[in-house]
Amino acid sequence: MLDALFKPRSIAVIGASTKELSIGNVIIHNLQHYGYKGAIYPINPSAPDVRGIKAYPNLAAVPGEIDLAHIIIPSRFVPQAMEECGEKGIKAVIINSAGFKEMGEEGARLQEAFLATAKKYGIRVFGPNCQGIINTDPDLKAYCNFTFTFPRPGFISVVALSGGVGALIMQGLADLGIGMRMYASNGNACDVSISDILSYWGEDPLTKAIVLYTEGVSDAKQFLDVAKRVATRKPLLAMMAGRTEQGAKAASSHTGALAGAGKITELIFEKAGILSFQDEGEMVRAAMAFASQPIPAGNRVGIITNTGGPAVIATDVLVAAGLDVPVLSGPSIARLRKALLPQAAVENPVDVVATASGAHFRAALDVLMDESGVDSIFINFVTPPFSDTGAIARQIVEVNRLGKKPIVCNFMTNLAQERFRMTGQILQEGGVPCYANPSDAARALGALARYGRLKRRGGVEPSEPLPRSDSAKARAVIARNRKSGRTVLSAADVYAIFEAYGIAVAPWRVVETAADAVLAAEAIGYPVVVKVDSEQIDHKSDMGGVVVNLTDAAAVRSTIETMRERFRSFAGLRFLVQKFLPNGRELIIGATADDQLGHLVMFGLGGIYVELLQDVVFKLAPITRTEAAEMLKLVKLSAVLDGVRGQAGVNKESVQNIILRVSNLLLDLPMIEEMDINPVMAFADTAFAVDGRIRILASGLKGDSP
Amino acid sequence: MLDALFKPRSIAVIGASTKELSIGNVIIHNLQHYGYKGAIYPINPSAPDVRGIKAYPNLAAVPGEIDLAHIIIPSRFVPQAMEECGEKGIKAVIINSAGFKEMGEEGARLQEAFLATAKKYGIRVFGPNCQGIINTDPDLKAYCNFTFTFPRPGFISVVALSGGVGALIMQGLADLGIGMRMYASNGNACDVSISDILSYWGEDPLTKAIVLYTEGVSDAKQFLDVAKRVATRKPLLAMMAGRTEQGAKAASSHTGALAGAGKITELIFEKAGILSFQDEGEMVRAAMAFASQPIPAGNRVGIITNTGGPAVIATDVLVAAGLDVPVLSGPSIARLRKALLPQAAVENPVDVVATASGAHFRAALDVLMDESGVDSIFINFVTPPFSDTGAIARQIVEVNRLGKKPIVCNFMTNLAQERFRMTGQILQEGGVPCYANPSDAARALGALARYGRLKRRGGVEPSEPLPRSDSAKARAVIARNRKSGRTVLSAADVYAIFEAYGIAVAPWRVVETAADAVLAAEAIGYPVVVKVDSEQIDHKSDMGGVVVNLTDAAAVRSTIETMRERFRSFAGLRFLVQKFLPNGRELIIGATADDQLGHLVMFGLGGIYVELLQDVVFKLAPITRTEAAEMLKLVKLSAVLDGVRGQAGVNKESVQNIILRVSNLLLDLPMIEEMDINPVMAFADTAFAVDGRIRILASGLKGDSP
Repeated sequence: MLDALFKPRSIAVIGASTKELSIGNVIIHNLQHYGYKGAIYPINPSAPDVRGIKAYPNLAAVPGEIDLAHIIIPSRFVPQAMEECGEKGIKAVIINSAGFKEMGEEGARLQEAFLATAKKYGIRVFGPNCQGIINTDPDLKAYCNFTFTFPRPGFISVVALSGGVGALIMQGLADLGIGMRMYASNGNACDVSISDILSYWGEDPLTKAIVLYTEGVSDAKQFLDVAKRVATRKPLLAMMAGRTEQGAKAASSHTGALAGAGKITELIFEKAGILSFQDEGEMVRAAMAFASQPIPAGNRVGIITNTGGPAVIATDVLVAAGLDVPVLSGPSIARLRKALLPQAAVENPVDVVATASGAHFRAALDVLMDESGVDSIFINFVTPPFSDTGAIARQIVEVNRLGKKPIVCNFMTNLAQERFRMTGQILQEGGVPCYANPSDAARALGALARYGRLKRRGGVEPSEPLPRSDSAKARAVIARNRKSGRTVLSAADVYAIFEAYGIAVAPWRVVETAADAVLAAEAIGYPVVVKVDSEQIDHKSDMGGVVVNLTDAAAVRSTIETMRERFRSFAGLRFLVQKFLPNGRELIIGATADDQLGHLVMFGLGGIYVELLQDVVFKLAPITRTEAAEMLKLVKLSAVLDGVRGQAGVNKESVQNIILRVSNLLLDLPMIEEMDINPVMAFADTAFAVDGRIRILASGLKGDSP
Repeated sequence: MLDALFKPRSIAVIGASTKELSIGNVIIHNLQHYGYKGAIYPINPSAPDVRGIKAYPNLAAVPGEIDLAHIIIPSRFVPQAMEECGEKGIKAVIINSAGFKEMGEEGARLQEAFLATAKKYGIRVFGPNCQGIINTDPDLKAYCNFTFTFPRPGFISVVALSGGVGALIMQGLADLGIGMRMYASNGNACDVSISDILSYWGEDPLTKAIVLYTEGVSDAKQFLDVAKRVATRKPLLAMMAGRTEQGAKAASSHTGALAGAGKITELIFEKAGILSFQDEGEMVRAAMAFASQPIPAGNRVGIITNTGGPAVIATDVLVAAGLDVPVLSGPSIARLRKALLPQAAVENPVDVVATASGAHFRAALDVLMDESGVDSIFINFVTPPFSDTGAIARQIVEVNRLGKKPIVCNFMTNLAQERFRMTGQILQEGGVPCYANPSDAARALGALARYGRLKRRGGVEPSEPLPRSDSAKARAVIARNRKSGRTVLSAADVYAIFEAYGIAVAPWRVVETAADAVLAAEAIGYPVVVKVDSEQIDHKSDMGGVVVNLTDAAAVRSTIETMRERFRSFAGLRFLVQKFLPNGRELIIGATADDQLGHLVMFGLGGIYVELLQDVVFKLAPITRTEAAEMLKLVKLSAVLDGVRGQAGVNKESVQNIILRVSNLLLDLPMIEEMDINPVMAFADTAFAVDGRIRILASGLKGDSP
């Protein structure tokens, strides 16, 4: 669908200029310099040619068909140019010009105007206020961009909201000697979105991995759907900037995307199976490893080094990245002892020592390739002046060619010396990802391993249905409330909805009189808690509307009477009598609606310290069982759930089930704006909702039955 | 003192070899290649010359005086060679050879042998099993090392325990175009230590900053003293690897230094005022900024950018590094609006936009230099093909030359293009620290700012003495216990020591009978707590030896009787009656002795969650008031101390005073092996020790009076 944009057979440049270093000249220079295989049509009202290519006064004068047009003229002329593009039958345009929506009302009007025209003619618009695209295909060589990096063909495609960061990533890959497949930086993104580009590259067999930079996604739902689909086929490496409040401010001052959306974007990345980065250099270096290496089957790494300190640094970083550096098996150690120099260390890291030859390196590589207890190989290769470093490089390349286990290499050398530059060239041509220091190399391997974990994690969709829920009953409760105009539900209604989804609630009754309260307490069994239940009383606990641990009828009776007096100004007072459950672990499970994405579900531990620590985990609904288990693990104080200092742990499955049932409930009831179960009281054998709150959108908004 | 080593006028190479690429040949090659200005004397029993330089069969045959000898011969010959060095009057040797202490008993014996000889002759020994040194002084050019990087002169000196990491740092600086002053990698460090080298460079006026890599320090006390002294004169940038357990294992397998000492080393760095890093690349890039830029007076940074996205990334990283990106003042904004293009953003980040000229950049730089609300300047400079990038670079250089505020530059370009390489050269020659991406540049500026905070933090030594303590009384208590062979002190003795140092203890009495307990309780005032007090009962709380909240005489009496029964098998039973203080905030203050460094003092919050979070802070005694305040701030849950959810905060000064008094106590009583006050009970107005424990070394060990 985007072929005209990414694979144009002919390109018109509207605003082609004879002035050196102007954008209208640079675009043509870049097409020429990169060796574009199609036809170039400079459009210029007066010049007979531009950079030696015959120019035309207007599109109509161009003899051949045109797939793609660059538009570089001032914004006020763009709507008319779009009309001419349509008349000429052009299928896609890249608008490099600025001066549209980002510049206020007048610009927005111009943008609307050219968009309407484009729609009329079925033209796809890339930009405006953007760089453009690059396709490195040797049969095409389309450099439709005014940047300065000329990548060689490769298997990584790069898309960036920011042209500056896109250029940075492209240059970073080039500096590492890594090829690129396609590139896109779409500026204002008025039509062709990052989601569209991802979707297109998802179908491109030569794009083996995608690198993405963004500052928030404005089409969250579409992005999530597309990214999920693409991520099942190829690795998607992404970075979101504007994470800090000040960073987000900087972001919103230069783009129209959602600011401050850092957390939601991270949740989308996670849900889609995108590998997320927080450092652009680290992402580019990781991409180098993805370009040539297989994904490790596990987290166990074998280290081969010919120098001590860098192995210590690498070990620190690898371990911090979630890898293990296991001691090798007895047979492997025995083989190494036999094959290596007597000073060598053979357990892991394997220190072949600085005087090691190519044969020593090879022996160590062979042992680690054979060792079933190792999933990946990290090499520290410093080039001692007294070694045949070329021979070492050739051995590494030979083993790398087997492609059995991923290899990364920290190659420490002085590239200003011919001899070592040649050694480096052997490694690079042999597809060994090389880094200039151990931490960078270790983080790249860490990214491969993290991706492996992401893939093995499985189940993006719920794998096992929970016992059937009574959604009809829940919908009826909601409908009744909407009809009466109530948006904050009563305790009885909240509990009814919970129970409709199989969420156990501590036994409860709603009563109006003290006498009924005593009967209820006796039915439930002492001790009980009494809570006032009124739509008008929101923070009942702070207002003396909750009394716990009532152990007999007299206590229940006097509590009801006291509350009746205290809240006498509120009409229609009811009371909730509920089983009092002390000594459990207090947890919170909640949810909040997002305009596009459905709901964000939250899990956390209760209590004051936890509030200070903000010890909560969010995930996007629908929540899978794997994700529910992760939520319990990801809270900082997760050890509390296992039991500490002689206190019993909680039944995690019961807690996870509540999360899953909440997730189901939210899918059925999109009109829920926010809800929480606070607390969930969890015990060694079970867990109950003890208090809850549900707020819904008023009738007529989201979620009404047809 | 180390002049012969670092400024040798003549060098003998014992083990000089005619064999290309052998170490005995590479050392001479490197001296020649680097242009050593002194005399070189190859020592070789048979060759008439090595690499064209006249060789001598032995040291005695060398006609001139020799300052320094490289020893490259097998380890078993080294003791004899040392004897000959002594006879020749050589003042320093670098032993490159391995095969000593790191290789077991026989090697250790050889090391002892040559060390004894060296001592006899007053020879300083560098190594063994090491690389060597480099002095880039243009009048000397001493490259006494077998590595492959040939640095240009500069102001940064580099010392690394690991030769591999040392070489990496040296190459990293060279790759960034940064000069070096001196270099040292001392391997086994049997004589000349890192502390000796730091001390020497502390006196070297041309060393403006020092970069240090280590895997732990074995001479902790000396290192701390030297580093403290040197750090007051010049920035010391350091990295400690072997932080993770597995990393420490990797470290200990290749060096004799203390493994697993990560935390203590970090505390030493902090105490000494050393700027600590966790990434070698980041440290090298920070060193580049230190080499040319002033230290910022504060944390406020102004950003100038000609591209949006990289400013967003930079802002994220700068903010995470503790910097602020403030909105500029009204007059500054007005000046910018006037001077910049209409599309420019002028608040901060200042986006001059991609089409900005040198004059636009200059205007923005001038405004930020004049703006009193900004302490440093971050520049994103991408090189658009349509700009005069050289003109922009020249403007940046001119402003940088003023040296008023630190500048770092994220210079995003393609250095493969001549035009942009020349732009980069202008920046480099103008002393502008340039980085290839915004995160790296931002972290370098972050390091400068962090160093500024470290310097402004002040007071390495206690600034204000606390009220005089009764150390004589405390010493008497300790002496009595040592005399009786008791190492775990009784509660009464612990409290007596606390009170001798002005640490308030919740009112207490020691009694033997129930009747006395009641009298004590009445004197103290109810409620009280009763604790059993016996040397033999260590975990009294777990054994039912503590009963809290006793509110009357009957309760005290029955408690004493129950305990007397429960602990009847213990001789000499006593009881502690103490004021019961509920509703305070439980804190822990403790200390543990270090063999070399005195004591590590710990502060933390009490309670189960805190234990799980390991929410404690350690610092090395003596603790200053600044440090005590930092300890309260550094715990994760420090907000609890300020009061949360309507609970009152604690009197922080009272808590800090207890920390300072504990620090004083430890200085006076070095025989304390470990102690804690657990809990300290803190209130809005004051804080008390409620329980405490002191364990001392037995008599005859540390801390006996003379």
